[in-house]
Amino acid sequence: MKKIITSTSNEEIKRIRKLKNKKERDGSGLFFIEGIHHVIEALDQGAEFENLIFCPEILRSEIGLKVVKSEKTQNIDVIQVSEAVFQTLASKEGPQGLAATIHQKYYLLEDIGKEDRGIWILLEGVQDPGNLGSILRCMDAVGGRGIVLLNDTTDAYHPTSVRASMGAIFTQSIIRTNIDDFIIWKKKNNFLLIGAICREGIDYNKIQYPSKMILALGSEQKGLSQQVMAICDILINIPMIGHVDSLNLSNSASIILYEIFNQQRMNINIEKGSL
Amino acid sequence: MKKIITSTSNEEIKRIRKLKNKKERDGSGLFFIEGIHHVIEALDQGAEFENLIFCPEILRSEIGLKVVKSEKTQNIDVIQVSEAVFQTLASKEGPQGLAATIHQKYYLLEDIGKEDRGIWILLEGVQDPGNLGSILRCMDAVGGRGIVLLNDTTDAYHPTSVRASMGAIFTQSIIRTNIDDFIIWKKKNNFLLIGAICREGIDYNKIQYPSKMILALGSEQKGLSQQVMAICDILINIPMIGHVDSLNLSNSASIILYEIFNQQRMNINIEKGSL
Repeated sequence: MKKIITSTSNEEIKRIRKLKNKKERDGSGLFFIEGIHHVIEALDQGAEFENLIFCPEILRSEIGLKVVKSEKTQNIDVIQVSEAVFQTLASKEGPQGLAATIHQKYYLLEDIGKEDRGIWILLEGVQDPGNLGSILRCMDAVGGRGIVLLNDTTDAYHPTSVRASMGAIFTQSIIRTNIDDFIIWKKKNNFLLIGAICREGIDYNKIQYPSKMILALGSEQKGLSQQVMAICDILINIPMIGHVDSLNLSNSASIILYEIFNQQRMNINIEKGSL
Repeated sequence: MKKIITSTSNEEIKRIRKLKNKKERDGSGLFFIEGIHHVIEALDQGAEFENLIFCPEILRSEIGLKVVKSEKTQNIDVIQVSEAVFQTLASKEGPQGLAATIHQKYYLLEDIGKEDRGIWILLEGVQDPGNLGSILRCMDAVGGRGIVLLNDTTDAYHPTSVRASMGAIFTQSIIRTNIDDFIIWKKKNNFLLIGAICREGIDYNKIQYPSKMILALGSEQKGLSQQVMAICDILINIPMIGHVDSLNLSNSASIILYEIFNQQRMNINIEKGSL
């Protein structure tokens, strides 16, 4: 089905614009993505589209035009909009004329235990959606499984998080839960929980990481709560020798994730070498 | 000297507000910092203050009030402002009532060669001041020396960069230069230049890093230019096994910086162990 919309005050366009707000996203279960790269990644990963939105005056890229006509988008409702309408939807400079509304997808804590291996991240009280998006992106890079968002952690489907994830929002499993349910789950499941803290803890570089584990990171301002620290099996820190007393949260996550990834790569090499 | 300003349209306040713009920062050679932590760090690092700005209605923290009365600030011109005035200067939510204008400080390429050891970063065409600030913060954490900003790389004294640096703007040496001058300097100086690129290059984890070196990183969109790649002694990459084809720039920088730092920490241990 294809619709053509040229009015910026069209009700459907208004509704899509409102997806910038958490309330609208929570209510509808939808989120908005923008740009050729993100739309292609969403299609490749089998995301559930509500609408594909394109603007013929802006969309000039051959790859982008192919997407609109491709088989993969044949069963998706397409909304063709005027340049004026697209500009009201676009949040980044130099829009590419391609966007979509997509159904959010949440997994359950029970899904974590289903596989023998897997690195997960637990975020508690993280405020900056840019940090969350960058962590998703890094998790994708190291083959991580997904992210558990605890309590008031920022929304993974916030436009800034989605953009910063560079498509990893579709490859990583997102779980929302509260601390009580997480504690119950943790007691039942044989998953090592490693908490990153600023002082004390073991040097992150001196640990042998297991092939299934959850790395817990706290908020930018306060770090992990006492409650989460109490259920961690190991507490680690990233040593620092300068004046700052912490690193940017997504940088901390990346540094630890790559230590884990490097160890696992090394083990795989050793295993292969010993065959 | 102490002034009291209660009008938001006061000329001096207008001038300070304008420091949000690069043109005004470049013209005056000043930049604006905000928050108790940043002001203390600036004082501790011997930054050259123009004005200390405080708002008695907002500044309630004992540490903050001590700063205003401390010996270190006795020779600094103090501007006391009303709450309405401070709100027009503050860029973050929940302002703390303490701010300052500070003279920018730039080093020269020649300063790099003065020491036997030292990790530097070269940034080419980096656009996001938040990335730049996070990289400064991580450089401080690993004991890095400073950052060379090439050509149109974003301004280290941009408010977002300053804030994200968490005080590292005062501990790291900032150098601005152009590619031609850098190439001339590189040919004369025995500093290994290691460029991080997205594909090809050696696995960053398989390299033994020297104790003096420059790590070059390109822009978020395009990476390093051919011209800079051509003068790199080694090209490295961070392996990835997921769908994304790159990491957030400051995450990439942090991952490599911590690999370098971990190696150096290990060497120091070995050296001590062999005494």
